[in-house]
Amino acid sequence: MKSKTQFCLVAGSTRTATIDGISAAGADPEAMRETPAADAELVVYGDLVRAGTVPVSPTGCPTPAVFTRAISTLLGLDVTVVDGGLLERTGAPTVSVGASPGGDIRDQDPVPSAPGTVAATREVGRALPGDELFVAETIPGGTTTALGVLRALGEEATVSSSLPENPLETKQSVVEAGLEASNLSPGDAAGDPSRALRRMGDPVLAAATGLALGALETDVPVTLAGGTQMLAVAALLRHAGIDRSLSLATTPFVLQDDSADVEDLAADLEVSITAIDPEFEAVDHPALSAYVDGEAKEGVGFGGALALADRAALPMATVRDRSLDVYDRLVEGVATP
Amino acid sequence: MKSKTQFCLVAGSTRTATIDGISAAGADPEAMRETPAADAELVVYGDLVRAGTVPVSPTGCPTPAVFTRAISTLLGLDVTVVDGGLLERTGAPTVSVGASPGGDIRDQDPVPSAPGTVAATREVGRALPGDELFVAETIPGGTTTALGVLRALGEEATVSSSLPENPLETKQSVVEAGLEASNLSPGDAAGDPSRALRRMGDPVLAAATGLALGALETDVPVTLAGGTQMLAVAALLRHAGIDRSLSLATTPFVLQDDSADVEDLAADLEVSITAIDPEFEAVDHPALSAYVDGEAKEGVGFGGALALADRAALPMATVRDRSLDVYDRLVEGVATP
Repeated sequence: MKSKTQFCLVAGSTRTATIDGISAAGADPEAMRETPAADAELVVYGDLVRAGTVPVSPTGCPTPAVFTRAISTLLGLDVTVVDGGLLERTGAPTVSVGASPGGDIRDQDPVPSAPGTVAATREVGRALPGDELFVAETIPGGTTTALGVLRALGEEATVSSSLPENPLETKQSVVEAGLEASNLSPGDAAGDPSRALRRMGDPVLAAATGLALGALETDVPVTLAGGTQMLAVAALLRHAGIDRSLSLATTPFVLQDDSADVEDLAADLEVSITAIDPEFEAVDHPALSAYVDGEAKEGVGFGGALALADRAALPMATVRDRSLDVYDRLVEGVATP
Repeated sequence: MKSKTQFCLVAGSTRTATIDGISAAGADPEAMRETPAADAELVVYGDLVRAGTVPVSPTGCPTPAVFTRAISTLLGLDVTVVDGGLLERTGAPTVSVGASPGGDIRDQDPVPSAPGTVAATREVGRALPGDELFVAETIPGGTTTALGVLRALGEEATVSSSLPENPLETKQSVVEAGLEASNLSPGDAAGDPSRALRRMGDPVLAAATGLALGALETDVPVTLAGGTQMLAVAALLRHAGIDRSLSLATTPFVLQDDSADVEDLAADLEVSITAIDPEFEAVDHPALSAYVDGEAKEGVGFGGALALADRAALPMATVRDRSLDVYDRLVEGVATP
């Protein structure tokens, strides 16, 4: 009855995503508003329920929710969605933790709900049954707020991107404007994760941090399932004084991103990395080859799901086949009015 | 990948429950506020997360959530919780459908959110994947609002109770006062389910009705998983013009309740009944014998879960054993601070 993995997907939003050229987590800015709500539905139901469109990048690369869904059905994994500030309604069940959509970090106080969200999710994280916790995210624009948090904490690293060409200069100038608006210099929020989250972060980072804090406080091991956003969560946990071991389960597509020094930052934060290769180049399919070409890369717990699939000795060919089943069904569903 | 039962538990509240002697769905009125939130956590996680106490009747009879949880883990059934107007926060993920806690039906407009909730849940019911839909409820005081709805629709039947002695006179006088406050005579809302729900119902009945409507409109068969509250939903569906076949999966404890003419009302509404006996008298345990003695009887989809267990040829001895495991773990959990 026990020996259970609790897999929490935090879904939310930041207005930072509306800055031109920041994110590929949606076909256009209007569609992007709905991406986390749609991702939650895809992971929970394998289908859209209230959301209007399957999230794709501007070039048509499908959301990694497809792969997380495929693996969760193969493993019988339950995914619990936490509302980390959704902008649009979702048909997926979500845990409410008092998160509101995040503002643009170039404003002075973009995430006033962050301290309350950390407190609520910490309580949930302490009480959730399960022998281990995986925490994942879906939030367009999230790598920019992750960069903002890292800077506020005084960490030097850069972040990855859902775009093949990481718009790092744009992100850095957004973060600079944000620090200025918040009257912060880099490192001014060192040791103060709540301040970093509230001034430079987003509600998803706040909820993910709280969940991990609560679990770690009750001796439940935590795996951060994602890329550089989840490394920002690791940094927040370290700045909260957590010295327990932490691991990151991400995709090889994130590790292959030379614009982000993931391995260096992970080493600095004493976070171990797992990155299981889904061997997408073995199949000639546009939905998979986009990932091989560096699009999307990670999100919705894709890397964490791959780690669980690998631990369960699930063949990657089975993962790929089921993923294409999920994808085909979605595309069919979209074609039917 | 398909052939899936969608099991929706609607959890909510009505201030009607605070009337003295109406409900046994909580040890006292304060605890009763939290019962649906706690039931949702028990079904989803098998444990409390944010709720403070395991729901029990004033005599200590445990919530039927214990049995639904036991069966759902044995069958690998996912239960989707819909927020049908929760009063207290829950750590369970819930689908938001715009429901607010219901007021006392002796007031003039106790459920102003009912029409919006029916519309939202109808949309969700249309879109939920799955080959069949089970709809269940947890709402203290729900049999009184069910009686109110039946009277507003012009149906003569009475309702069951979570108490061994059904306080039918109290319920009838509450309903009379409610009809007067709403300026309705019995039958005035015949053919107008929204009016019956808004004036004499509760938000859980509204959400359950909408879910069923949406599913039936897309040719997904619906099983109403519960007792007389779910028969009120059947009546609402009939008054909405639905003539498809409907079935009720309830417990034998409801059928044995002579104070409610369940079988007559079901026959009037052309609803077929399934009631699988969990054979609780086979085990000498206070948590089970309370049910044999007519306490609690039904709720949280207990009868629906039994029907699914029976369909899967799950031995009732296994159901009882697992139920006592769930119960023991909860009681232990409560003992630990």
